[in-house]
Amino acid sequence: MKIVIDGMGGDNAPKSNVEGVVNAIKEYGVDIIITGDKEILENEFAKHEFDKSKLEIVHTTEIIENEDKPVKAIRSKKDSSMVVALRMVKENKADAIVSAGNTGALLAGGLFVVGRIKGIDRPCLCPAIPNVKGGMTLIADGGANADCKPINLVEFAGMSNIYASKVLGIENPRVALANVGIEEGKGNDLAKKSYEELKKLNLNFIGNIEARELINSYTDIVVCDGFTGNILLKSAEGIAMSILGLLKETFLASTKGKLGAMLLKDDLRKLKTMMDYSEYGGAPLLGVNGGVIKAHGSSDAKAIKNAINQAIKFAKGDVVEDIKEFIKTIEENSEEE
Amino acid sequence: MKIVIDGMGGDNAPKSNVEGVVNAIKEYGVDIIITGDKEILENEFAKHEFDKSKLEIVHTTEIIENEDKPVKAIRSKKDSSMVVALRMVKENKADAIVSAGNTGALLAGGLFVVGRIKGIDRPCLCPAIPNVKGGMTLIADGGANADCKPINLVEFAGMSNIYASKVLGIENPRVALANVGIEEGKGNDLAKKSYEELKKLNLNFIGNIEARELINSYTDIVVCDGFTGNILLKSAEGIAMSILGLLKETFLASTKGKLGAMLLKDDLRKLKTMMDYSEYGGAPLLGVNGGVIKAHGSSDAKAIKNAINQAIKFAKGDVVEDIKEFIKTIEENSEEE
Repeated sequence: MKIVIDGMGGDNAPKSNVEGVVNAIKEYGVDIIITGDKEILENEFAKHEFDKSKLEIVHTTEIIENEDKPVKAIRSKKDSSMVVALRMVKENKADAIVSAGNTGALLAGGLFVVGRIKGIDRPCLCPAIPNVKGGMTLIADGGANADCKPINLVEFAGMSNIYASKVLGIENPRVALANVGIEEGKGNDLAKKSYEELKKLNLNFIGNIEARELINSYTDIVVCDGFTGNILLKSAEGIAMSILGLLKETFLASTKGKLGAMLLKDDLRKLKTMMDYSEYGGAPLLGVNGGVIKAHGSSDAKAIKNAINQAIKFAKGDVVEDIKEFIKTIEENSEEE
Repeated sequence: MKIVIDGMGGDNAPKSNVEGVVNAIKEYGVDIIITGDKEILENEFAKHEFDKSKLEIVHTTEIIENEDKPVKAIRSKKDSSMVVALRMVKENKADAIVSAGNTGALLAGGLFVVGRIKGIDRPCLCPAIPNVKGGMTLIADGGANADCKPINLVEFAGMSNIYASKVLGIENPRVALANVGIEEGKGNDLAKKSYEELKKLNLNFIGNIEARELINSYTDIVVCDGFTGNILLKSAEGIAMSILGLLKETFLASTKGKLGAMLLKDDLRKLKTMMDYSEYGGAPLLGVNGGVIKAHGSSDAKAIKNAINQAIKFAKGDVVEDIKEFIKTIEENSEEE
């Protein structure tokens, strides 16, 4: 088992990436490859005590920045820490990659460098949002495909179902369709047609879910096109953060408020952690020929370590093999019809 | 100026409707027609002191329930409080209608009873969500049209722009397109094409807005298809309410928390009010030949009174005439091309 880390990707790279790698080696005993500027990385690693036999540093000379155009960056920055790491997955030198770098570039790299699983029309990004029960809900697709057909949503459902069972350990995950009402027949053309197809799948499809219920832990997975997924994800993130900000502002506006807030400090911190999307590790890109885990851009050492743990479980869980099996059954069923 | 109220529509009808009407007569001196069971309504009105010359009760024998299928209900329950009220707008016996009843039925009734403005392809529902600055942001379309073409979004933009200026009194309203990124060229096919068309309009189009920024008061209007609008609206509503619920739960879990919450009681109540979507009056149905205001299903007397005020401003503002003018300029421009 070998995991490769994009050493230079992320707002806190390479410091947090290096610290996350050190802690992952200590905690999971995993072999790690890290890509990036060798001198910089060695200086960072020199600050830590750990089993150096577990680490390989691969020198790269370029960095894909957040401002770079995704496809162009992947094609032109061939010696970037991200592209070199992706190539290692492609060439089976590593079982999975973790990157906190440019999301669009990682999606493009997943497609063009690692490559799609045969039979999958569109890979999907699968981030999680926290719910009020302290658990999380996967969004498939969380933003990789703005325009979708029903077959794409079927693939997203199947792939995220495998990921939820194998990597997150959820038994018989509940899969719901994002919609504007709970009754069958509701929604836009895509939702109506997708509902018909999702019903036929051999998984725990619980029907439609409204956006207002997403936070209430009624489902483990919500399936939708990537445009809708992005809206769901970003509005949850924005509103949660704004309300917490508003609370703080309101409390600090009066002496009584300040006193109250002081008493509630621990509770408020707990709430903030619960609502902090970066706590929930990385989002897998499902449907490509290997483990690709996107860590949050603002990942700290703990988030990187968590994402490495996800990558390990992804590789151990044979997620890619299971997706290949799933696609076979889909193709067989559609031939029978 | 005459406003007609669906006396039997809404979770708190007819009590709150009657009380809202009484307060509206007192505060605005407006003439009101109310539809519904005459005996029940007379009994309710008997509890209040007000200028009875301002009120006309029109007896109806049927009620459209929340569970009724919208189109079927409008077509079959011809003597319902909602259909009779809609017909009064159609026949110019009233300038606008307020209903807190079945939303789908009111949309269908707006189309089939009141009728579309000539040249408008799709009327839109235009609810508001609160923002952290204490103001609100209109969503056009907030759920009337699940599938849309770019021309529909152009109409939504123009109509909500008129409503925001004339009824809400916002000067030169900012209009943004709901999207997954702020740069031009982002999004799904509909968003990309709509952006091109929105740029050409003679209004204050400020470009794309991401879902996470909606609560931050960066725009007065957000334009989108009704599927996306519903997702935006419902996720904002759900998350805001869940976080406030979570806060309460967390605070009440410890003695320290209880003490802190007691000190913060007023602040928390202020926050709750700010986030309470029913406080923000009704949502207009724009693009039909008259004022149609949908009040929240759970409207209390205050919400009904606020919705009546909106209906008055809607009629006074000549919104329908302005929309007719807007459509003319759109048609002229497309002929020129």
